[in-house]
Amino acid sequence: MAVVEIYDTTLRDGSQGEGISFSAGDKVKIALKLDQLGFHYIEGGWPGSNPKDMDFFRRIGSHRLQNARVTAFGSTRRPGVPVETDVNIQSIVSAGVSVATLFGKSWDFHVLGALGTTLEENLAMIQESVAYLKGRGMMVIYDAEHFFDGFKANPEYALATLQAAVRGGADRVVLCDTNGGSLPGELAAVVRRVAGEVRVPLGIHCHNDGELAVANTLAAVEAGVTHVQGTINGYGERCGNANLCSVIPNLALKCGHATIPRESLAQLTELSRYVSELANMHPANHQPFVGASAFAHKGGVHVSAILKDARTYEHIDPALVGNRRRVLVSELSGLSNLLYKYQELNLDLDTSKEENRRLLEEIKELEHQGYQFEGAEGSFELLLRRAYDHYREPFKLESLRIIIELKENSPVYSEAIIKLTVGDQVVHTAAEGNGPVNALDNALRKALEGFYPEIRRMQLTDYKVRVLDEKDGTGAVVRVLIETGDGERSWGTVGVSPNIIEASWQALVDSIAYGLLKNGGGSKERP
Amino acid sequence: MAVVEIYDTTLRDGSQGEGISFSAGDKVKIALKLDQLGFHYIEGGWPGSNPKDMDFFRRIGSHRLQNARVTAFGSTRRPGVPVETDVNIQSIVSAGVSVATLFGKSWDFHVLGALGTTLEENLAMIQESVAYLKGRGMMVIYDAEHFFDGFKANPEYALATLQAAVRGGADRVVLCDTNGGSLPGELAAVVRRVAGEVRVPLGIHCHNDGELAVANTLAAVEAGVTHVQGTINGYGERCGNANLCSVIPNLALKCGHATIPRESLAQLTELSRYVSELANMHPANHQPFVGASAFAHKGGVHVSAILKDARTYEHIDPALVGNRRRVLVSELSGLSNLLYKYQELNLDLDTSKEENRRLLEEIKELEHQGYQFEGAEGSFELLLRRAYDHYREPFKLESLRIIIELKENSPVYSEAIIKLTVGDQVVHTAAEGNGPVNALDNALRKALEGFYPEIRRMQLTDYKVRVLDEKDGTGAVVRVLIETGDGERSWGTVGVSPNIIEASWQALVDSIAYGLLKNGGGSKERP
Repeated sequence: MAVVEIYDTTLRDGSQGEGISFSAGDKVKIALKLDQLGFHYIEGGWPGSNPKDMDFFRRIGSHRLQNARVTAFGSTRRPGVPVETDVNIQSIVSAGVSVATLFGKSWDFHVLGALGTTLEENLAMIQESVAYLKGRGMMVIYDAEHFFDGFKANPEYALATLQAAVRGGADRVVLCDTNGGSLPGELAAVVRRVAGEVRVPLGIHCHNDGELAVANTLAAVEAGVTHVQGTINGYGERCGNANLCSVIPNLALKCGHATIPRESLAQLTELSRYVSELANMHPANHQPFVGASAFAHKGGVHVSAILKDARTYEHIDPALVGNRRRVLVSELSGLSNLLYKYQELNLDLDTSKEENRRLLEEIKELEHQGYQFEGAEGSFELLLRRAYDHYREPFKLESLRIIIELKENSPVYSEAIIKLTVGDQVVHTAAEGNGPVNALDNALRKALEGFYPEIRRMQLTDYKVRVLDEKDGTGAVVRVLIETGDGERSWGTVGVSPNIIEASWQALVDSIAYGLLKNGGGSKERP
Repeated sequence: MAVVEIYDTTLRDGSQGEGISFSAGDKVKIALKLDQLGFHYIEGGWPGSNPKDMDFFRRIGSHRLQNARVTAFGSTRRPGVPVETDVNIQSIVSAGVSVATLFGKSWDFHVLGALGTTLEENLAMIQESVAYLKGRGMMVIYDAEHFFDGFKANPEYALATLQAAVRGGADRVVLCDTNGGSLPGELAAVVRRVAGEVRVPLGIHCHNDGELAVANTLAAVEAGVTHVQGTINGYGERCGNANLCSVIPNLALKCGHATIPRESLAQLTELSRYVSELANMHPANHQPFVGASAFAHKGGVHVSAILKDARTYEHIDPALVGNRRRVLVSELSGLSNLLYKYQELNLDLDTSKEENRRLLEEIKELEHQGYQFEGAEGSFELLLRRAYDHYREPFKLESLRIIIELKENSPVYSEAIIKLTVGDQVVHTAAEGNGPVNALDNALRKALEGFYPEIRRMQLTDYKVRVLDEKDGTGAVVRVLIETGDGERSWGTVGVSPNIIEASWQALVDSIAYGLLKNGGGSKERP
């Protein structure tokens, strides 16, 4: 079982993704997490390029890492400038870490054009920069930028740049598909050619512009590379970098390589979500291995087979990467989805096949109207409980009125007035909001807080509106999906109506009813 | 240049993706778009499984497609049931299309376990089902479910299932990596083995569970397959299907295959966004080829390299797939965008550089607030005219009030009261609607019809709501996009506010103002 080194560049290349910005504190947190999971290298940033990265290196220096080595990124010295006085090289040194990741030009066209120097000077820049950092006792990883494009244009020169790095004493030579346009077959052939000529462990660094970054990385490993670079969730400029959340399980579970320890692999899903949280990016549900939908089954045929044997529709056991199986209920599903749900919800229902079939028909009819229970497990469970369980609603609506007033040049005014019964008491109250639904939400909470104080812990965390069959213009049916959390768990609820207020009301009512149910509140009558 | 057939299953496999639910009307729209772009096959749905799919087949039958053939999906007959009376087979027939896509089991473990029949009966099921549909004059595409897993477990039996389909007369034999766990190298080896034994054009159907669906599809084509199945944006169960938005440009631009016509390739970005809009999925910015960030570059040296030669940081010319380069945060590129817009709108404005710069700042500020002028040319032109032109609003709002009332077990009531001035006259009127925005729309039309009879020809054709920054729950900012048509042309307008009513009002006002402007109504004062 060959060892493949895992090199993470989430903190540098990943932070160049559009919309991603980590604070120095976020970066430290991520680095500690990666270290804990046994990553081999963590590229911390480009100390020469901005003060935040320098701040990171200062902070991480006070932590003792268990597994990983932190690297500082930077370019080879500038043309015509001695390494001793080159600002970039000196800022790598001043980062105070033991590993440098140095990038240089491999493509003659870039050297002559973008860099504006001679091919010979570029070779000297590479060799001298590597040698200088080696002379300071650092390990040096040499990143050959645009290597594959450069090799296509001028293979001899591209190879000569690598040899310059080797002469300088580079510990790793990493081939970069900087523009992300290579195909696995051609990339692997180039790697094999390089492996025949360069006597230093090789690495690979891929971008995803052809949706092939993971495949290219695997192809390079098959061709002899023993060091892979990528980012968590594939974050990175343009289409991103090779996604380590896919590269690692493919290498470990399918190709039989040693990467991070097996028990760390089982924390990959958590790692992915932790990083997306800090990056303030919505987690991609469909992300392979670690996404919320990665082991979610919707089709009825699939579900009945899964219940018999999970291998039928799962390529790996989700637990290996810390993920879990989910069964979705929709118009595509059959009775087995429903039965699985009963199990999952711990509903010990003594229902007949006939009753189940009727309920399934009802669900399909609701979905035809526009309801969608996939993101709305809360409404779904309430539907089941209302159908079979001795469930009692925590409150009942008597009436609801919304008033919105708008005058030119003055702020819009939204007010909700509601009248509810809770047990045998009537509550009649009102609230404002910055929109009609917000006013309604405020009024509902105000009315119920005295009866159910736990409502204060419930927060609306997401509110989505979808206009169904939009061609009906403003008369179209609207679906509202609401997500609510209480700090421990979160749940989704749904409402559908041609009237957005009514749809929102349905979803709001379910969000609170479900929260109370799960809090074990007085809403469940024991038979 | 070998031709590779493109088979789209967005409407069937794609709709199994979590959170995706197309109405029958959405499905028809997508099918017509795919046909227009020259896709070869469009899998419309599984007519036996739900009423919506049957509805789609009924509707699509009334359209005359130019390029594509619509296929109906379904399984081979059940064990022990004659094809003539098998419900699934008969519903494929009743879909009324000329192509059937029939899936059958290739994996012995599935046959014995999930299906619960004998290996021999499964072969008979395949052969007889194919032969029956062929006998009804249909083209039959045979999808060998779980082929690669089946081949690994029992290669002889997996091959025997394909031969059964060939004996039945199948026109295509499609190898499915149903669980999405295969690696490109092993998959290509199996394809080559099959190509040596099966004398019918082969196809490939991949899932993305290993983040390798695109690579696996390309590897299969390299190994001899001439028919590829996938979905727009890679939608599909779990981690999705092979993403045709990446497969097609890779095949066409990098591997030199003929797929859809070159001019259709240049509409791929538009197609991707059209489908994500109908699926109500946020377009994935980092999506290769068609994503908004796919050719986004940051400032500085990087941009100047791009301006000298785009090949420095772009793997293809974005225009080939209908995408565009974006230079992030560049005042220069912004100004030239604005001047380009003046030309496009035929606005002969004698504006100073200073005025343009100020307007650009205003547009950036509006976009920062959440406005989006790409789908709202009406609002954009009004913005320019309000800034520079001697433009006079056709009416002015004095006040607006909306009342919504809901009582348990009675229909919701929505009423809008508005007071406008048109010229020197005051109009004060009210209307009901099936929702607050519909009531507002009705009231506005009622108030203005007497002054501008041409309003009767204007119809709201589309109404879209998007919640921006959904994490703020019901207090989040809402963007409303409205599309209006007058039978000849159609135009989009936009409104943004934390209050959905106010956002809708802005977009409604612009929709009518713009319609009146284009009708040359009295709303434009000649200086």
